[in-house]
Amino acid sequence: MNTKIKAGIIGATGMVGQMFIKLLENHPWFDVTYLAASASSAGKTYSQAVQGRWHVSSEVPSYVRDLMVEDASNVEKAIGKCSFVFCAVSLGKDEVKALETLYASRGFAVVSANSAYRLTPDVPMLIPEINYEHVNIIPVQQKNNGWDKGFIAVKPNCSIQSYMIPLHALMAKGYKIKQMTLVTLQGLSGAGYPGPSAFDLIDNIVPLIKGEEEKSEIEPQKIFGSIKDGQIVNDTSILMSAHCTRVPVIDGHTVCVNVQFEGKKPSESEIIDCWKNYRSVPRELGLPSAPENTIIYKEEADRPQPRKDRDNGNGMAITVGRLRPCNVFDYRFVGLSHNTNRGAAGGAILMAELLVSKGFIKA
Amino acid sequence: MNTKIKAGIIGATGMVGQMFIKLLENHPWFDVTYLAASASSAGKTYSQAVQGRWHVSSEVPSYVRDLMVEDASNVEKAIGKCSFVFCAVSLGKDEVKALETLYASRGFAVVSANSAYRLTPDVPMLIPEINYEHVNIIPVQQKNNGWDKGFIAVKPNCSIQSYMIPLHALMAKGYKIKQMTLVTLQGLSGAGYPGPSAFDLIDNIVPLIKGEEEKSEIEPQKIFGSIKDGQIVNDTSILMSAHCTRVPVIDGHTVCVNVQFEGKKPSESEIIDCWKNYRSVPRELGLPSAPENTIIYKEEADRPQPRKDRDNGNGMAITVGRLRPCNVFDYRFVGLSHNTNRGAAGGAILMAELLVSKGFIKA
Amino acid sequence: MNTKIKAGIIGATGMVGQMFIKLLENHPWFDVTYLAASASSAGKTYSQAVQGRWHVSSEVPSYVRDLMVEDASNVEKAIGKCSFVFCAVSLGKDEVKALETLYASRGFAVVSANSAYRLTPDVPMLIPEINYEHVNIIPVQQKNNGWDKGFIAVKPNCSIQSYMIPLHALMAKGYKIKQMTLVTLQGLSGAGYPGPSAFDLIDNIVPLIKGEEEKSEIEPQKIFGSIKDGQIVNDTSILMSAHCTRVPVIDGHTVCVNVQFEGKKPSESEIIDCWKNYRSVPRELGLPSAPENTIIYKEEADRPQPRKDRDNGNGMAITVGRLRPCNVFDYRFVGLSHNTNRGAAGGAILMAELLVSKGFIKA
Amino acid sequence: MNTKIKAGIIGATGMVGQMFIKLLENHPWFDVTYLAASASSAGKTYSQAVQGRWHVSSEVPSYVRDLMVEDASNVEKAIGKCSFVFCAVSLGKDEVKALETLYASRGFAVVSANSAYRLTPDVPMLIPEINYEHVNIIPVQQKNNGWDKGFIAVKPNCSIQSYMIPLHALMAKGYKIKQMTLVTLQGLSGAGYPGPSAFDLIDNIVPLIKGEEEKSEIEPQKIFGSIKDGQIVNDTSILMSAHCTRVPVIDGHTVCVNVQFEGKKPSESEIIDCWKNYRSVPRELGLPSAPENTIIYKEEADRPQPRKDRDNGNGMAITVGRLRPCNVFDYRFVGLSHNTNRGAAGGAILMAELLVSKGFIKA
Repeated sequence: MNTKIKAGIIGATGMVGQMFIKLLENHPWFDVTYLAASASSAGKTYSQAVQGRWHVSSEVPSYVRDLMVEDASNVEKAIGKCSFVFCAVSLGKDEVKALETLYASRGFAVVSANSAYRLTPDVPMLIPEINYEHVNIIPVQQKNNGWDKGFIAVKPNCSIQSYMIPLHALMAKGYKIKQMTLVTLQGLSGAGYPGPSAFDLIDNIVPLIKGEEEKSEIEPQKIFGSIKDGQIVNDTSILMSAHCTRVPVIDGHTVCVNVQFEGKKPSESEIIDCWKNYRSVPRELGLPSAPENTIIYKEEADRPQPRKDRDNGNGMAITVGRLRPCNVFDYRFVGLSHNTNRGAAGGAILMAELLVSKGFIKA
Repeated sequence: MNTKIKAGIIGATGMVGQMFIKLLENHPWFDVTYLAASASSAGKTYSQAVQGRWHVSSEVPSYVRDLMVEDASNVEKAIGKCSFVFCAVSLGKDEVKALETLYASRGFAVVSANSAYRLTPDVPMLIPEINYEHVNIIPVQQKNNGWDKGFIAVKPNCSIQSYMIPLHALMAKGYKIKQMTLVTLQGLSGAGYPGPSAFDLIDNIVPLIKGEEEKSEIEPQKIFGSIKDGQIVNDTSILMSAHCTRVPVIDGHTVCVNVQFEGKKPSESEIIDCWKNYRSVPRELGLPSAPENTIIYKEEADRPQPRKDRDNGNGMAITVGRLRPCNVFDYRFVGLSHNTNRGAAGGAILMAELLVSKGFIKA
Repeated sequence: MNTKIKAGIIGATGMVGQMFIKLLENHPWFDVTYLAASASSAGKTYSQAVQGRWHVSSEVPSYVRDLMVEDASNVEKAIGKCSFVFCAVSLGKDEVKALETLYASRGFAVVSANSAYRLTPDVPMLIPEINYEHVNIIPVQQKNNGWDKGFIAVKPNCSIQSYMIPLHALMAKGYKIKQMTLVTLQGLSGAGYPGPSAFDLIDNIVPLIKGEEEKSEIEPQKIFGSIKDGQIVNDTSILMSAHCTRVPVIDGHTVCVNVQFEGKKPSESEIIDCWKNYRSVPRELGLPSAPENTIIYKEEADRPQPRKDRDNGNGMAITVGRLRPCNVFDYRFVGLSHNTNRGAAGGAILMAELLVSKGFIKA
Repeated sequence: MNTKIKAGIIGATGMVGQMFIKLLENHPWFDVTYLAASASSAGKTYSQAVQGRWHVSSEVPSYVRDLMVEDASNVEKAIGKCSFVFCAVSLGKDEVKALETLYASRGFAVVSANSAYRLTPDVPMLIPEINYEHVNIIPVQQKNNGWDKGFIAVKPNCSIQSYMIPLHALMAKGYKIKQMTLVTLQGLSGAGYPGPSAFDLIDNIVPLIKGEEEKSEIEPQKIFGSIKDGQIVNDTSILMSAHCTRVPVIDGHTVCVNVQFEGKKPSESEIIDCWKNYRSVPRELGLPSAPENTIIYKEEADRPQPRKDRDNGNGMAITVGRLRPCNVFDYRFVGLSHNTNRGAAGGAILMAELLVSKGFIKA
């Protein structure tokens, strides 16, 4: 790539926005040239705008310190400044929809970490390793909306990455999943700032994350779905039941999975081989954020662990361990992924890279 | 009870031993009159013996400060001092067996928090609410060993209390459990001192507790079993599959349960009614450690939580919440119990009270 | 005491209010007969009012579950229901002053855990062990305000208990303090709910608690002050400099102290003897909340520790340890007290007991 | 530098050893070519040797996975493999001295993170920003020991970095420090694995780190000392008194400082200017690990915080904040540094770079 593509970040001052800032420093394809946030940040430099609320470790990267923050609602400011935008805002569903629609209607590709459009049938919700073909719904979406260049693509909820890719690896080998139970032990960074109270997470866990179980059960159906008659049709064949809990962990979502196959059932060593030898489409496409090994299987009996494994593959790998037979279903295992990297900003960047690779985002 | 029964504590200086000391202060039926530990503590007062390693909150109770600690291996020291002993030691399985056998053979009832004898068919493993009738194996055990007065009774592993009693309440109403998956989020106090490293439990969880899953799956079979032909025969009809994880919580084991019934299936309100109206045999027998409500159902969507609910019913209640339908099985819920109180020392004290009530322990 | 004195709690639904509820269960002198909170809680039973926000461990005590919560601003509701009120509300300074004045003007003794009146010269700010004689300002206060029966007495900030009583014990022996530096490591429960973010207190500490250092430096001056010409005159002779930090601890404030004496300097053993033999006025007066030992000196080199020592003396003792020479001043030591018990609700209850004992609160 | 210098790591499998491995990946000057540890690791690849005990976040770097680990006591194995060694072992003082002497005597520069030789007068203990001139003691050391090429240089304790450089910056401007009190809130990673118990650091802090206060008070005297008559003579003019506490933080040592100047006293803005404009000798020498800004002053009132600021300057910067007047001394402030990076492995690497720059380590 000779010239970097100009990227914007809407919601640049929030927690996920800060992760975008951090991860896009020295990105080989993208140049951050437009930052937007709420009206109260508009007109400030990025340094000023995040003064007292920069929560990502180490200092604000120098490349972005003096960039002016614009009012996100004023799309005119973006025109000419960037080719596409990442979007991660703290707004109600309708406001998110309005904002993303606004940018798409003005010709921007909107690569969104928000949930508003996740279940819309002509909006692709992408885990690039799994359903990269769903990018093909984009022309339909553009036609439906009368947009010639702009479009919206979204990433799924952070809680599902840790099991979706390991399952997909098996499904890609021809094994079919019948049903599974999931219990997540989720880090808190995804809840934004201030997020959960320390009173609730010191010497304590909270066995509820509002709305999370529903997302964990429904979003996989769309991701495993397929395009039919101009929309993405969910695959409802896998029964999933999730408990989502909040634990005293900053970053990293761990999941305990019990899974049963339908029909042919792989052996333990076949599963481990499948994971260890998993080669992802994003890696084959040369996407810069695709880790060398998307799935890492740990032989140690007490792994994966969030603090020790969340940064594997630059925070983009899925780490799996403890595969063993299950007394009720076929197998049990533990999965882990970094929720604000792979599960949010990093996942969105990988998605943007896929969209570049497929020609949907251009310089 | 006119005269208190004299009780000993073997392993009095360890973590569970310390909980016995704390919980037996002002016990209406028992007087602690004999303390034993390893040879290195022998000859010291209890205060001296736990100097620098008293880990239970607040100070060493005054009633026990000047009591002399004996060498546990010297059973002669116990004779005449107490009628029965609680036992919670950190020794290998064979050593525990030898020690408990020694005391039983010399006429002591041994109420054990150790695991060595848990799976022995003529040793009752008691959750007094559930399998109080297993005390009737004691005469068989005595006969098998040629003991006239002494015997051994054990409590199960701390990880299972949080779901066994709620399930038993339903089974007592005639519902049959077919299968269940369990994920525990366990506090660390049960691991003794020093136990898990802080390096592993700050901003982290550990998805393995060695040996715990096996105990969580096998012990319920014995507790739900029945006495046949002079031994306790396991009930293997319920399929159980457990993940056991360690979380940054001091006291309290939380469990996420997915459960499927066989045949008749209760409604949500029937389950909640059953739990709210559960009346336990220990309470009916007037055992002092039986809480007013053995099962507490929390209506709040984010409960139970370990720090907030572990002390319910003086640390002896089981707190349950989040009952809701399951996409895979019938229902999901969350259970919680205090692992060193109900799950260890408190559970053993309740068991001793049951044995008094049934005439097996006498003054 | 033949008849219990009827007590009210204003701010009964907040964190400190909940501690009052817990600590006053079975109080030998006081009966809680009046509960008040903001208008939004008025008309609900206490159980209803704290549904979903009862944060103290174990369940809402049964004695208070069905008590109706009144609107605190409607003082008429209190009349006839109680003789005095505890007050712990989350309001601005002016609103607190107005509320406390309202109750005092209507004849209620107001025993306050709020800070609004702490620096008012005719309002006693009491640590009953130290400045019990400051109760004698009450008639002046009543006269100043034209109140015949009502008055206001306040407790100091939670951060200072851990060093004030140990220092006072030495001052009572005739030693004079010249100067001291303090660094506090404070638990978070005093900040109310939700209080600090878990994002800030997992794998982290925060080296600032707004306003806390100022309180820690100024309030001791008043407590060590004396009544002159109808007001409490501060003693500004001790130089104090405080750093206040927030650490991942639920309850318990730890302080590291460096202290220099003026003139005669006690030896290490004299200090320890002084602390170990400290006999407090509240204990001599037979106040029910006064612990047997107000100061507990731990010989173990690694104590006091908040979780292990905060409940000493039923949460009312000050635990001290690590006395050793200082290279810069004379001595260094570590102190600890329970911030929501001794430092808030428990301290206020002890103060109320003192006021009963001195005849200022009557049935 | 055309050819990289070959470096060895003794104690490569321990916690600090793992940090060396991580930080030396892609180092511009050094190539890790020799790994040594205890005999039990000898003969294994590095991956095998750290299987189940790799605790640094993300995976073992690929460059070192297949490197064979040697028995550290067999110095012959090192000969020809590397030009100098980093040393960080868990051994007694005498064993460390013997081991480091062995390597020095065979011609290796030993850059040590161990404490054994810290107080030896002909061994430089270096913070390269402060006492880089102490490298000139090396020829004396070599002569004293009859070594022609080898020598030993050590880094100081991890707890002192957070205040030594900020103080030095002021001293370099001509201000003289009279006395100071320090309270550290230290992360736990420096204690090795398993290190402190989670039982002691969840909802708790420990107000003691054995031996740490002594090191914190004595080591600065040597670092501020000067070479006289063939040895480093301590500067004992600054009175220092330290409390060292352990807090639930993985990495990062925070310190609360109260400081008094002797004579001329800078204004607040002079201090902040001095820190903000501090230009370090290592940076001027072009040492690759020297951060752009060695001292970072945070304007936000609640900083520095360990998790958010420890990685500033790639974990090599000292972050300072909260400068304000002191009621007892002149000023108060808060400092922070990363204990296993700047305070251990990173600090040692910077020291090795200095020794290269000064010609003491050669390819």
